[in-house]
Amino acid sequence: MQKLRYHEPGTAPATLIVPPEQVGQKPVIKLIEYDAHSIEEREAQNVEDVFECLDNKKVSWIDVSGLGDVEVLRKLGRHFRVHPLALEDVLTIGQRPKVDEYDDQLFILLQMAYNDETGRLVFEQVSLLLGKEYVITFQEIPGDDVFDPVRKRLREGCGNARFMRSDYLAYALIDAVTDHFFPIVESLGEAIEEMQETVFDQPAPEKLRDVHELRKALFLLRRSVWPTRDILARLWRDETGLITDRTKPFIRDCYDNAIYVIDLLESYRDAVRNIMDLYLSSVSIRTNEVMRVLTLIACIFSPLTFVVGIYGMNFERMPELHWKYGYIAVWLVMIAITVVMLVYFKRKKWL
Amino acid sequence: MQKLRYHEPGTAPATLIVPPEQVGQKPVIKLIEYDAHSIEEREAQNVEDVFECLDNKKVSWIDVSGLGDVEVLRKLGRHFRVHPLALEDVLTIGQRPKVDEYDDQLFILLQMAYNDETGRLVFEQVSLLLGKEYVITFQEIPGDDVFDPVRKRLREGCGNARFMRSDYLAYALIDAVTDHFFPIVESLGEAIEEMQETVFDQPAPEKLRDVHELRKALFLLRRSVWPTRDILARLWRDETGLITDRTKPFIRDCYDNAIYVIDLLESYRDAVRNIMDLYLSSVSIRTNEVMRVLTLIACIFSPLTFVVGIYGMNFERMPELHWKYGYIAVWLVMIAITVVMLVYFKRKKWL
Amino acid sequence: MQKLRYHEPGTAPATLIVPPEQVGQKPVIKLIEYDAHSIEEREAQNVEDVFECLDNKKVSWIDVSGLGDVEVLRKLGRHFRVHPLALEDVLTIGQRPKVDEYDDQLFILLQMAYNDETGRLVFEQVSLLLGKEYVITFQEIPGDDVFDPVRKRLREGCGNARFMRSDYLAYALIDAVTDHFFPIVESLGEAIEEMQETVFDQPAPEKLRDVHELRKALFLLRRSVWPTRDILARLWRDETGLITDRTKPFIRDCYDNAIYVIDLLESYRDAVRNIMDLYLSSVSIRTNEVMRVLTLIACIFSPLTFVVGIYGMNFERMPELHWKYGYIAVWLVMIAITVVMLVYFKRKKWL
Amino acid sequence: MQKLRYHEPGTAPATLIVPPEQVGQKPVIKLIEYDAHSIEEREAQNVEDVFECLDNKKVSWIDVSGLGDVEVLRKLGRHFRVHPLALEDVLTIGQRPKVDEYDDQLFILLQMAYNDETGRLVFEQVSLLLGKEYVITFQEIPGDDVFDPVRKRLREGCGNARFMRSDYLAYALIDAVTDHFFPIVESLGEAIEEMQETVFDQPAPEKLRDVHELRKALFLLRRSVWPTRDILARLWRDETGLITDRTKPFIRDCYDNAIYVIDLLESYRDAVRNIMDLYLSSVSIRTNEVMRVLTLIACIFSPLTFVVGIYGMNFERMPELHWKYGYIAVWLVMIAITVVMLVYFKRKKWL
Amino acid sequence: MQKLRYHEPGTAPATLIVPPEQVGQKPVIKLIEYDAHSIEEREAQNVEDVFECLDNKKVSWIDVSGLGDVEVLRKLGRHFRVHPLALEDVLTIGQRPKVDEYDDQLFILLQMAYNDETGRLVFEQVSLLLGKEYVITFQEIPGDDVFDPVRKRLREGCGNARFMRSDYLAYALIDAVTDHFFPIVESLGEAIEEMQETVFDQPAPEKLRDVHELRKALFLLRRSVWPTRDILARLWRDETGLITDRTKPFIRDCYDNAIYVIDLLESYRDAVRNIMDLYLSSVSIRTNEVMRVLTLIACIFSPLTFVVGIYGMNFERMPELHWKYGYIAVWLVMIAITVVMLVYFKRKKWL
Repeated sequence: MQKLRYHEPGTAPATLIVPPEQVGQKPVIKLIEYDAHSIEEREAQNVEDVFECLDNKKVSWIDVSGLGDVEVLRKLGRHFRVHPLALEDVLTIGQRPKVDEYDDQLFILLQMAYNDETGRLVFEQVSLLLGKEYVITFQEIPGDDVFDPVRKRLREGCGNARFMRSDYLAYALIDAVTDHFFPIVESLGEAIEEMQETVFDQPAPEKLRDVHELRKALFLLRRSVWPTRDILARLWRDETGLITDRTKPFIRDCYDNAIYVIDLLESYRDAVRNIMDLYLSSVSIRTNEVMRVLTLIACIFSPLTFVVGIYGMNFERMPELHWKYGYIAVWLVMIAITVVMLVYFKRKKWL
Repeated sequence: MQKLRYHEPGTAPATLIVPPEQVGQKPVIKLIEYDAHSIEEREAQNVEDVFECLDNKKVSWIDVSGLGDVEVLRKLGRHFRVHPLALEDVLTIGQRPKVDEYDDQLFILLQMAYNDETGRLVFEQVSLLLGKEYVITFQEIPGDDVFDPVRKRLREGCGNARFMRSDYLAYALIDAVTDHFFPIVESLGEAIEEMQETVFDQPAPEKLRDVHELRKALFLLRRSVWPTRDILARLWRDETGLITDRTKPFIRDCYDNAIYVIDLLESYRDAVRNIMDLYLSSVSIRTNEVMRVLTLIACIFSPLTFVVGIYGMNFERMPELHWKYGYIAVWLVMIAITVVMLVYFKRKKWL
Repeated sequence: MQKLRYHEPGTAPATLIVPPEQVGQKPVIKLIEYDAHSIEEREAQNVEDVFECLDNKKVSWIDVSGLGDVEVLRKLGRHFRVHPLALEDVLTIGQRPKVDEYDDQLFILLQMAYNDETGRLVFEQVSLLLGKEYVITFQEIPGDDVFDPVRKRLREGCGNARFMRSDYLAYALIDAVTDHFFPIVESLGEAIEEMQETVFDQPAPEKLRDVHELRKALFLLRRSVWPTRDILARLWRDETGLITDRTKPFIRDCYDNAIYVIDLLESYRDAVRNIMDLYLSSVSIRTNEVMRVLTLIACIFSPLTFVVGIYGMNFERMPELHWKYGYIAVWLVMIAITVVMLVYFKRKKWL
Repeated sequence: MQKLRYHEPGTAPATLIVPPEQVGQKPVIKLIEYDAHSIEEREAQNVEDVFECLDNKKVSWIDVSGLGDVEVLRKLGRHFRVHPLALEDVLTIGQRPKVDEYDDQLFILLQMAYNDETGRLVFEQVSLLLGKEYVITFQEIPGDDVFDPVRKRLREGCGNARFMRSDYLAYALIDAVTDHFFPIVESLGEAIEEMQETVFDQPAPEKLRDVHELRKALFLLRRSVWPTRDILARLWRDETGLITDRTKPFIRDCYDNAIYVIDLLESYRDAVRNIMDLYLSSVSIRTNEVMRVLTLIACIFSPLTFVVGIYGMNFERMPELHWKYGYIAVWLVMIAITVVMLVYFKRKKWL
Repeated sequence: MQKLRYHEPGTAPATLIVPPEQVGQKPVIKLIEYDAHSIEEREAQNVEDVFECLDNKKVSWIDVSGLGDVEVLRKLGRHFRVHPLALEDVLTIGQRPKVDEYDDQLFILLQMAYNDETGRLVFEQVSLLLGKEYVITFQEIPGDDVFDPVRKRLREGCGNARFMRSDYLAYALIDAVTDHFFPIVESLGEAIEEMQETVFDQPAPEKLRDVHELRKALFLLRRSVWPTRDILARLWRDETGLITDRTKPFIRDCYDNAIYVIDLLESYRDAVRNIMDLYLSSVSIRTNEVMRVLTLIACIFSPLTFVVGIYGMNFERMPELHWKYGYIAVWLVMIAITVVMLVYFKRKKWL
């Protein structure tokens, strides 16, 4: 379960508060400006260094990595006329993916999923502000840069990357984020595959725990992928004019990927539910089996023990005790009882 | 389960009846008038004292705390031309959150959730009447004032609060109410977290009771949050003109919060269902385990007891009793039986 | 389960057949004509007596109580130009609530729910024909008059009742019918409350039966309330012009009530499902508990009985029998076994 | 489960193949022509005999009973310009009810449900082609004529039947088919009623089998009624002009019937699910009960048997054996054990 | 579970990568050109050989079987102006069926289902590019040609095949693919039928495994059929003008087939769920039965064994042992106990 983050009830809207674990950390600001012919890359020391990027015809991409400095956001916000609520969203970690339309900007908030070193599923919030000629990205965690492949493609100028405008760049960045769903879905699929193999083995609570963990991971992932799909659908049908028709098929492709992931997650959910059902069913079949053995034993030995008990009594007058073949007769009786019981069980198909 | 409140079948519509527990309690009426430059605050002794507020260009906010006096409502209603059905709604405690459009007013009814001193989830009904230049609020419970933070922000003139008109005030008030969902959702999340830890422990009905309580709380909360979301969606897409475009992004933000809370509640519901499932599964696995031990014991000792029973019989002619190594032979037979049984159980993986 | 009523397959449509239990019973016909200034009330001997009511400007309300006379309906139908299918609907008891639009009439069919003397949930079909200047109502069961409170309000001229036209009258009548859902929902809520208290008690099939009865009642009620909601939604958005804008807020209010009832029913359904789940869970926990006791007893006494069985054997040479402390040694062995078992159970947390 | 019928993969569309069980059977062709004044009825030997029916102003109804002759269909198809896919649909038994729009025809395919002599639920496919002045019907099974009541009403000229045109005839025929759902739903309802009575009796697998059969019947019926409802909804909102406004209220009435049947089926489904739940619950309650008895017996007799075992031992020195009141003391001990056990069980509420 | 295929996160969009198992395999390219009068068929050695087909008025169908050569796709793509994302889709095996609109082309991707030699359900991806005068098809697996029946119909000129244009050809090809669902659905239906017969037999985990396999197959099939239905619905309502009105009824027919298959799959899903339920229920009924036998035995023999134990005690003074009829009295007591127990069980209906 993720930590719930919220402002104190009564806090004024659009209050900017740095996430507690990042307080004091200086964000890394990178600027890329490019058009079809040239590309320029720079790491800015101060946020003001990137402000002139609006003055040329190139596409500008400002990447802010780390959310530790409210001032940077405020200045960026003022210069690029970002709505204060969008800035607040950038800082509020753990939100639901969404796209918000502002006057001439689209604000897109995503959750990137990945497995951390311990194999646990974690999320990193990535926000994206798409304007006419620029894209501003905000990454929650400084250091580990999810956008590197895009940067590389831009530098090498391969594919469409450099010929197209800021909307295609935004697409490429979104695509880079959503691509991370695939390896996770794959690892979940393998875990399920494995569980299906062992589901009929001896019941043990640890298995339940594993299924439970899987279920939680699936749930978290779903909560992130579903709204991502909605975002992509909305971008595809964009009517603000910020997304050009040339970019839309690519967004549709990304949307198809999201649908595919959702489809797989649904099938995994079904599979996990089935595993749980199978597991419980196999528990009750095993209980039934154990009960049958117990009953068999009880049915055979209860009468026998009773019989031998009878002749262990110390009555003075028990004629059978003095018969010549008494002992053998008792044995015969007991064998007969056993045979009858076994036949009965055979009939009932309990054997 | 909340108490159901309704008028006797056949009662005329729009009949104003004070909630029984508030009969005779005088409501507290507060008036705030403000514009960008000034703010004036007053506690009114009589409801008529606030009527002149309509005569200036300032935004007026009339807050009625406590529902004990029908006359106050009637007079307010007449002066501000409130529809009688809206007044009736104000007085009928425990309603579903809703927004009703009247000629040039929006009537908004909310349920504020909070944990009372004993930790139980309770609701307070808060109604809100938004007109062109005024907002009238009605709080169910006098004394404890949920709107204090808004009052404070108005006084201090921080943020947008004073620059904007009555619709933004309405937003701020709604936001103050809906913000209260977060701490409750958080405490529910923690309770669930805790339950997940103890779910594989020894089964006990008390745990079921806890899960049941949690489930009820989730359900009550859902019933309150879902309609709140609908209200916010409708305000966002408002077409009466009472909500200005400048306020709408803030309402969308509030709507996003509601969606987020709903999302969390759904995930908690799923988690509680899983806990219940896990708990029951662990009960049947434990039963299976107990059964295996029982069967093991029965399978080993039934034949042994039978054997020793045989040689406890008092037949005159039982040759074995007189054999030299009879006693030892019996021991060997019994050890053999035990070994066979253990091997059988090992094979069946019951051991 | 309600009795299913239908015409023989192949019957011509719009065939009027009196419900079998009412054959020969003469319906009671009451006429009220009113406007803002005056009201006139009359019980008609023959249906023709009410026909002149169309000739004045007053609102006329004709109430037919009892469905025993096809001729009455036919004549009414001819005079007021009622569609034959509407007349057929009036006579076919047990239908789904619905609203049908005819040329200049709205035909509304409702099911009024109430508990009969034995506490069982029963339904009475009430139909309503709304024309420009008149309302005709048909009640299934003569005698017990659900519309009395409306009649009283009309007579006393209190509220809006007399100032408004036939559509408001129709609303008031519908409201009188739907108000009857509340006391029933309340009694169901109390029954559920009570069940939740006793759910962890000793399992017994009678409890299941109670839950089952409750479930059935909830289901029947739902089947009646849901379509009522749809009717109200449709009347609210009426485009025939038969419902005036002044009446619509009242209908919306009634609609809100229906939503509220539905909301409660859903929460009760959920609660009943939970009770069922809890009950079954508590059964399996109890079974587990019983099993643990059984196994404990078996594990302790099986070895003990075996031990005492050994020294009950009659072998000639059993050295232990002649030892001085043999008997005490056996006791010590048996105490040791018991202690070991108890420790084992303690470890397994079965004790 | 119904037999699945399909053409070999790769077969050309609109291939006409006679259902195997009807090969070689000559269909019966009946023609009725009528207007408000006259009616003419005829059984045609050759399909060509009915072709002239288009030349007059009367409404023509051609009924083809039996699907054994492809030539008849081909000729009809050519003369009345029926789309080849519609003809293929007529011949493909077991399809989902549907309505297809062709240029100036509506093709309606229905499944009529009835119980065969053995009480099993079976379906007969009935197709209907509605043109401007004619209706052509195709019945799967020759002989048993579902349309007889309509024929009779036409002959007798009762009701609206003869005054109205082909669309009303089509309605009357559809109504005749859908009316057959009612008796079946009634018999299912009675079966459920009966099951609810016996659900708390001794568990037996046969009961499960009955519930299972009922479930299957409900499912099959649903699969037939739901699309029928859709057909009626579509006819009601018809925009081809083939259905006149005068006929539409009748279709709506038929639609209401379908809704009513669906409503009942849903409630039955719910009831069957409840019965299943109750049955399983009562099984586990009974198991719990049996377990309690078993445990009670074991708890009382295990210690007693142990005690008597002790004094059956043959140690030389067992002082108790020689005590004067030893025997009586043992009895007292055993009575004490029994009492303690009973009190314990009483406390645990297992008695 | 199918293998998940995806590109490395960060890969540029529209990157063409040959599926690993096909690397180096040369695809087979077949060209058919036809109009109503003539048909020409050719196997092309180089992809360039088919390029002239655009120059005449005939309908051209290019079939590429096997995906081993990226160059072929690139050249085709350039000549026919295929969007790079469509080409990427052709190569990415295992995708969700979909239809994408490009400027003057429709790209349709399908999954053909069939059972392989071992009876396992497998899928083959088939893509289809529909242009004004041409259709290009891509089959995943070279060799086994699913389109042979269509080819044959074209050659023979039977039906509509040759008179109609490329859209009808596309329909025929889609129909050829979707027809393969029927035999699989049929085999699944038979497997379910069989399972229903054996569900009340002795419980065994293998049966669970079979149900599980079936469930998986149903799930995979659903995932393929549902989007196929959506594709057909979209083609039916096509607004690009690529699908003519004459072809649309055929597509609707194909759509009806898809609906029918979905309908069956849903009913199978329901049936499988029922089988699972029944199976588990029969397990618990059997456990209950076994328990009853066990309890019966325990209840009868525990007291008896106790009684005989008493008289096996070696107390010096046990008066009963010396009574003349002591032994017979004990027998009578034991018979009495047995009778009482049996009567008790009879009463409880456990016998």
